[in-house]
Amino acid sequence: MTLEEAKALDAADSLAFARERFRLPEGVIYLDGNSLGALPVATPGALERVASEEWGGSLITSWNKHGWIDAPQRIAASLAPLLGAQRHELLIADSTSVCLFKLLAAAVAARLGRTTILSERGNFPTDLYVAQGLVELMPGLRLRLVERDELVNAMDDDTAVVFLTHVDFCSGERHDMHGLNAAAHAQGALTLWDLCHSAGAIELALNADGCDLAVGCGYKYLNGGPGAPAFLFVAEHLQDQLRSPLPGWMGHAEPFAFDGDYRPAPGIARFLTGTPSILALAALEAGIATFEGIAMAKIEAKSAALIDLFVAEVESRCPELRLAGPRGAGLRGSQAGFIHRDGYPIMQALIARGVIGDFRAPDLLRFGFSPLYNRFEDAWRAAAALAEIVATREWDQPRFHARQKVT
Amino acid sequence: MTLEEAKALDAADSLAFARERFRLPEGVIYLDGNSLGALPVATPGALERVASEEWGGSLITSWNKHGWIDAPQRIAASLAPLLGAQRHELLIADSTSVCLFKLLAAAVAARLGRTTILSERGNFPTDLYVAQGLVELMPGLRLRLVERDELVNAMDDDTAVVFLTHVDFCSGERHDMHGLNAAAHAQGALTLWDLCHSAGAIELALNADGCDLAVGCGYKYLNGGPGAPAFLFVAEHLQDQLRSPLPGWMGHAEPFAFDGDYRPAPGIARFLTGTPSILALAALEAGIATFEGIAMAKIEAKSAALIDLFVAEVESRCPELRLAGPRGAGLRGSQAGFIHRDGYPIMQALIARGVIGDFRAPDLLRFGFSPLYNRFEDAWRAAAALAEIVATREWDQPRFHARQKVT
Repeated sequence: MTLEEAKALDAADSLAFARERFRLPEGVIYLDGNSLGALPVATPGALERVASEEWGGSLITSWNKHGWIDAPQRIAASLAPLLGAQRHELLIADSTSVCLFKLLAAAVAARLGRTTILSERGNFPTDLYVAQGLVELMPGLRLRLVERDELVNAMDDDTAVVFLTHVDFCSGERHDMHGLNAAAHAQGALTLWDLCHSAGAIELALNADGCDLAVGCGYKYLNGGPGAPAFLFVAEHLQDQLRSPLPGWMGHAEPFAFDGDYRPAPGIARFLTGTPSILALAALEAGIATFEGIAMAKIEAKSAALIDLFVAEVESRCPELRLAGPRGAGLRGSQAGFIHRDGYPIMQALIARGVIGDFRAPDLLRFGFSPLYNRFEDAWRAAAALAEIVATREWDQPRFHARQKVT
Repeated sequence: MTLEEAKALDAADSLAFARERFRLPEGVIYLDGNSLGALPVATPGALERVASEEWGGSLITSWNKHGWIDAPQRIAASLAPLLGAQRHELLIADSTSVCLFKLLAAAVAARLGRTTILSERGNFPTDLYVAQGLVELMPGLRLRLVERDELVNAMDDDTAVVFLTHVDFCSGERHDMHGLNAAAHAQGALTLWDLCHSAGAIELALNADGCDLAVGCGYKYLNGGPGAPAFLFVAEHLQDQLRSPLPGWMGHAEPFAFDGDYRPAPGIARFLTGTPSILALAALEAGIATFEGIAMAKIEAKSAALIDLFVAEVESRCPELRLAGPRGAGLRGSQAGFIHRDGYPIMQALIARGVIGDFRAPDLLRFGFSPLYNRFEDAWRAAAALAEIVATREWDQPRFHARQKVT
């Protein structure tokens, strides 16, 4: 493909207008929205309004006057069309890790007598840590890790919860959510999905696919800002059965009764713990608003086309790089990875050229595609730059080998 | 006292300059900094810088380039002089409730074989909920609640942790931190202090007083913004003995190794869980900076003088109102309360006059004093307004009886 052909795809792209919803630095091709989404144009103004007008102008009375108290539910509700869930099944709270802990513990408690959390060996490390932490707290509970293709056979009548990441952070491989939910339910187990690399990237149908519980990240494809709060999903039929192991005043049935005994609020609100950062929520709200009026099916289709272009261009120019993860669009998330033993300096050289992806040890060059702001031109230029850097060994300079604290 | 005398106190106040560090709305006397601190002048600019320049301009590379990765420790370190703790004993993380859960569970696990969390009946409700949540997770553990004056006698060789709020959110009464730490240690128990109503309000000496563990609030006296992240303190000698029950990737010894097994980082960093909101951290940093160059002893002394003036003026003008909590400055935090059966509408009438305090059921009018921005003139005017509203029954109008969602 030529650059002109890529530009023609952009000209014909019905999502091209969405790029104007973001402030992107000049001369940068940003393929790391799967790690930190780009800055929405609306965010600085939203922060200024919440800080100066609301907090500064109305102080404590903003909790009522500006609806701060309802923000975790209100903002979560705007995620419903992205996730295929009902508005009242969603909540913004805490970090991804803390939300995973809450729902994992709640699921285990709801399946009393069952002692196994089933997950896969390659699950995202923080998910495994959360499970390990819970196992240390709850005697008799165990974490069983199996390979991806052994999951269904490993489910049995001792499985309390099947705990999986929908899209693998390295390979980009996507689980069959519908099938795994059905298999878990057939054994009487609940499912908890980590949607960090799915939400805002591909079309989800949490209700139609029979999901019980899910948690996802606000700062990747949802563009909510660095360390944005997470969202959690609890299917309607489970909400009143489950209890949060981290009860806090915000999730109490009557927070302002200041009652010494915890009584969980009805519905999703019981999964709130402490007071959320209203500033962080405002940025997340602006991030989610970048999806306004755009169907996830369209975003997923553009993601597939961007990645197909990128992969084809890299493979045709650069046989030294081996594709990581699955090839078919429906099998992966919105990312593409290539394996190279010198992946670290290659990525640094690429970043020095203004093409930002990231590196995951030991040898993965990882590229996330955010269809709201990534163009076909970007995919083409990134592939060309990558191929050139590998072919010319441009990466083989000491400055590209220096390890940074955050990779 | 006359208004002129109060103004003369302000003119002589060596902390008066600090009020310029805040943006306060015209015509408002703000006595609710114990619930939400006022907006620092520097905060909107800090948010704009982090959002537009750092996130918008440098995207993911900001984690290294702008030091985001070290923010939880760096900002926490700036609290050291306010708390009488060492810089490396402090961390910013999560919400108060989540931090309390982490340290409470860690303390219980470190006192294996002991089965009692000891607290007081009147402890802040969310603290009790957190303990109740932990007891539900950990079979054999119990929460024992006693009256304030029974605490020392209730400590025994089954006490794992003594879990108390330093300054009571209603009465303002202050515990003898040094004495209770000593009593707990004599029984082999650890102590966990909730400092929500102490930090930034009164002088603390966590190290000198022998504290083991503490958690405090970023959005009250520290002026970190609505729902600001919390801080936690773990005494140096305990850091490597304790493990967080909420392990996350940020607290791993090598976060970017993406290792499937959790290995806690050395020192305080192991108490990190998920990715913190960098925007919320920036606001908290600006809030803590409002204390720069000011000794907590001076702040505490001004707090005592403000409250003494306020209480004396209210009591001399308004015998209908009964002081809640202790009278002596060293016995209380930086708040004063008055009891009145019609407290709710009285507070609404006061707020309508631009004097903002808050109401706590069933009958408490609560006033927080933030010596960085509250003036003697404010204390005098608030007392005069309160007395007038009670004397004239100005509060007895339907609009002041209407209940708001957040009180």
